[in-house]
Amino acid sequence: MKTAREMIRNHPLEPICDADQLAAAIAEMNVCAQACTACADACLGEKDISSFIGCIRTDLDCADICHATSSVLSRTTQPSRELIRAQVQACATACGVCAAECEKHADMHTHCKLCAAACRSCEKECRNLLELIR
Amino acid sequence: MKTAREMIRNHPLEPICDADQLAAAIAEMNVCAQACTACADACLGEKDISSFIGCIRTDLDCADICHATSSVLSRTTQPSRELIRAQVQACATACGVCAAECEKHADMHTHCKLCAAACRSCEKECRNLLELIR
Amino acid sequence: MKTAREMIRNHPLEPICDADQLAAAIAEMNVCAQACTACADACLGEKDISSFIGCIRTDLDCADICHATSSVLSRTTQPSRELIRAQVQACATACGVCAAECEKHADMHTHCKLCAAACRSCEKECRNLLELIR
Amino acid sequence: MKTAREMIRNHPLEPICDADQLAAAIAEMNVCAQACTACADACLGEKDISSFIGCIRTDLDCADICHATSSVLSRTTQPSRELIRAQVQACATACGVCAAECEKHADMHTHCKLCAAACRSCEKECRNLLELIR
Repeated sequence: MKTAREMIRNHPLEPICDADQLAAAIAEMNVCAQACTACADACLGEKDISSFIGCIRTDLDCADICHATSSVLSRTTQPSRELIRAQVQACATACGVCAAECEKHADMHTHCKLCAAACRSCEKECRNLLELIR
Repeated sequence: MKTAREMIRNHPLEPICDADQLAAAIAEMNVCAQACTACADACLGEKDISSFIGCIRTDLDCADICHATSSVLSRTTQPSRELIRAQVQACATACGVCAAECEKHADMHTHCKLCAAACRSCEKECRNLLELIR
Repeated sequence: MKTAREMIRNHPLEPICDADQLAAAIAEMNVCAQACTACADACLGEKDISSFIGCIRTDLDCADICHATSSVLSRTTQPSRELIRAQVQACATACGVCAAECEKHADMHTHCKLCAAACRSCEKECRNLLELIR
Repeated sequence: MKTAREMIRNHPLEPICDADQLAAAIAEMNVCAQACTACADACLGEKDISSFIGCIRTDLDCADICHATSSVLSRTTQPSRELIRAQVQACATACGVCAAECEKHADMHTHCKLCAAACRSCEKECRNLLELIR
């Protein structure tokens, strides 16, 4: 998060919303994308993989969406509020769906528990941004 | 588009909507992502680059979003309609915003004209999918 | 491939190698990335999923690598030959590894057969580029 | 880095190399990908943009490559050493090229200085991994 915040502060233009909130959201998206990628793979390695099919699929979707949203938010120049809001909304939705899926397995598998927590944190940051960017 | 369609037809599970419509949308997203990536770079190479700052930024956003949406739609197993709809909605928005930006320069630069056309085609496919997936 | 070629031809700067060869490589990378994403998901939907764990993992790696390589090649401005060669080399390797994995299942599952073919085509285009870009 | 390390430690299979080294590399790749995305955009916002064309282009390449490499390393199941080594090699090359480009502007623009530092850290982690994964 430190580098993301410094990059915003040293950009020649003003960020679309509070720099710390924005940096926190970008950082959570990167953590969530990585956690989802790793959770999908950890599910692949479990013996009872047939219980995790939905989790793998949703993890992969959520990773792709968090990554794209992080990239969009990492840009400051001439933003489109409409585009940003739509993508952050999609990210909040993806994180919520993925968290609900991983929470089903959180008692059995720590990787699902960690991934669910990352998704919930990211979902919360997305909802904060949707309040800030109007 | 041919391979995308064959992949859907040879998947063990049923697609979320008509296979041809789905394959067409995936193909347009891939064309649009590539066109946006190439248009951003072509704008970078123009002498009057300062006129293209907004175009470059929006191209990069649209490329990231189209790529993520294509990946989500390329999966068939245990889909979340809510997640898919939110992401396709964001893709339609991104394509519309990027097309409008590129259309401003379409008379001067063929790469913007081509990119705007790719964005409009992709936006249309997204809106078709939003009708089909409810 | 048509749009990719037109984008190269309408770029203000000269491409790093023959435009048709470059457009063909970009197009194959996009087809391969999509086929790998779809094949990973089709494997997830198969009843005997435990036979496909290695295939899913390699498909996901190959999709990520083809996508990144396609994006790098879609840029023409001030290229680094060293960077491009290293990434195209990684893409050739990923496609070769993924093709070998999918070929093991090609008789049983058409999605693996299609994906293996897409990987082999992409690998070939990568090797062509490595001859052209020195 | 904390979540990446916990995900590796809670994976059902053994990582390809030391978990802490691997988590450090993944974390640096994510920081570098974000820094490059943000630096490309900050360059876009500078008044003397024409001095930064090469920097923007290389930032975008490096961001794409770091992201793909982070995803590959986030997977543990049935790894291909050949594929991983080729991609980590490409990532080291991309980070070295991008760092050299950003270092040219590091005295004038803090975003380039920060981005160059992120690239050098990531390059170092890649070279460490290449020693560990043989």
